[in-house]
Amino acid sequence: MTPPFADSPRLAPSTAGFANIDQVWEACREDLQALEGRIRCAIDSNAPIINHAASYLFCSGGKRIRPLLLILSARLCNERERQDRLLLLASAVEYIHTAALLHDDVLDDAAMRRGRETARLLWGNKASILVGDYLYAHALDQVIALGNTAIQAALAETCRSMVEGEVLQLSQRRNVNISAGDYVKIIDHKTACLISTTCMLGALLDSAAPAKKAALAQFGRHLGIAFQLSDDALDYSASQHKLGKALGQDLYEGKITLPLLHLLSACTREERTVVEQIIERGETPAHDLDTILRLMERYQSVAYTLEESRRFIALAIEELRAFPPSPYRDALEIVADYVVSRDH
Amino acid sequence: MTPPFADSPRLAPSTAGFANIDQVWEACREDLQALEGRIRCAIDSNAPIINHAASYLFCSGGKRIRPLLLILSARLCNERERQDRLLLLASAVEYIHTAALLHDDVLDDAAMRRGRETARLLWGNKASILVGDYLYAHALDQVIALGNTAIQAALAETCRSMVEGEVLQLSQRRNVNISAGDYVKIIDHKTACLISTTCMLGALLDSAAPAKKAALAQFGRHLGIAFQLSDDALDYSASQHKLGKALGQDLYEGKITLPLLHLLSACTREERTVVEQIIERGETPAHDLDTILRLMERYQSVAYTLEESRRFIALAIEELRAFPPSPYRDALEIVADYVVSRDH
Repeated sequence: MTPPFADSPRLAPSTAGFANIDQVWEACREDLQALEGRIRCAIDSNAPIINHAASYLFCSGGKRIRPLLLILSARLCNERERQDRLLLLASAVEYIHTAALLHDDVLDDAAMRRGRETARLLWGNKASILVGDYLYAHALDQVIALGNTAIQAALAETCRSMVEGEVLQLSQRRNVNISAGDYVKIIDHKTACLISTTCMLGALLDSAAPAKKAALAQFGRHLGIAFQLSDDALDYSASQHKLGKALGQDLYEGKITLPLLHLLSACTREERTVVEQIIERGETPAHDLDTILRLMERYQSVAYTLEESRRFIALAIEELRAFPPSPYRDALEIVADYVVSRDH
Repeated sequence: MTPPFADSPRLAPSTAGFANIDQVWEACREDLQALEGRIRCAIDSNAPIINHAASYLFCSGGKRIRPLLLILSARLCNERERQDRLLLLASAVEYIHTAALLHDDVLDDAAMRRGRETARLLWGNKASILVGDYLYAHALDQVIALGNTAIQAALAETCRSMVEGEVLQLSQRRNVNISAGDYVKIIDHKTACLISTTCMLGALLDSAAPAKKAALAQFGRHLGIAFQLSDDALDYSASQHKLGKALGQDLYEGKITLPLLHLLSACTREERTVVEQIIERGETPAHDLDTILRLMERYQSVAYTLEESRRFIALAIEELRAFPPSPYRDALEIVADYVVSRDH
């Protein structure tokens, strides 16, 4: 297999399209490997525990979906975009993402993430809070070097928006009457905003036309919502091994996600009472989770959620029509499909 | 009493000096009142709990020492500095300070601050973490509007440094062998860095000569260390009413501050064993605190700490010699004296 970007220098992809996500990863391998080095070297704090915890987090097998999206979006706008600028932004995005995960795990009392113990189990909640704070500040600090006000503002605003999403989710915990619209609003803030900004950064680097910026932001936003919907479906359907954490975590934490909202609206009144009692109890023994999973199977709640996810992916791909055909556009489409097809 | 700044417009102080801190407050009253409005209006989140918590925090009777230092430092460099730029920066500094307090209270399991219940008691640790995150991002976001890269970098770097101080403090908890040098390093990061940056911002606004910038940064740094030393002394000497929280909190939390370090080095070997046992036990019943307070009285540990604090104030004031005599220079000197003389 000849990776489509590799036949002549990295910046000049062949016009051959991509057959699958592996080819896309392969085409970006050099950038992503350089990114790994940069992400780890750039954390050089006076406080050793920050360096240890950051190193643990950055070796935890994250797929670097956001850096991949950033690289492809930027090259879609400007094929010759400088690698150093891409890596700087991609690492900032990963720092922000990791900071949010650290704080999320404290908020959720989480024990496992990606099949490993969470930082809070290893170093405690206090260190997790502080290392998260450090990574947020570090991300915003290093972006200043680009001297691009629009990029700085977009990332700072994104940090605020992500926090708002978490606060909204916290305030809606165990609320079975939350509307699907409010649920989408939460995941838009919590997950889609960073992915949307990541894709938009490509256009901001290039001071591209507003249409490009808006199209990539919308592409990322729809993709981010689809990504979270897919995650929410996985929480009720994946094997524990693939998920890297126990099934039914959202239920346990009282997070009312779309599979549960669908079930609540589709089931009989008697069944709804049972489901509501399980949610309200605030603990989920295995037989309660089984009850929910059986009902979800009956009403096809996971399938419904995945359909919704694919609907958002279609909206995302629609936005790419703003760009002429190119290998980068194809690659973004493949990444979008991959995001919702993984692990099901 | 005629406030020295008020006889002709705010920007043109009379040449009459200041007799005391009240006159300094009075001279900056208009700016500080405008700041109060700005601080509260600028928090306008989609998540109501962020607005409620922020409003509670900003009405909690903070003295606005940092905004005062910023205003005076900026006017020392440029008497005609625009109020809108000052207020923007002063509010950003207060947001960062408040975010750090929110996270500190979570780290310390604190129940009281400034005589009121902490946000974590009212809204929980989770909301406190998130509102802190929001305020950090909001602070860095609004500063972007100034378009001054040096100011942005200074504030982002300060956020990192503050976190490093907290992490270092956390890792040295209950370590009775910490050196005085390491202790000063912690408070330099944790407290002095933000005060140093706050003072330096005045010079950065004016793109003043490097000497001015360095002198104000050093003034703030020494002042910040003195401020923390004075705080650490208060924890073993103030009345609970004035302190706004219980006496001996640092001891209870295992923070080894200068009064305790002095005691450990000054007392007999037998007494040291008693003190170490109290620290190691990790809880401080009233009779243990009494033992420590009696020993501190015998060895004058609080007096020693206050002397050290005054020594740093003298170093701070020395830095002001880089500036020609002016009412603003006098005012900064009065503020410096006030910071270590309050409540003793």
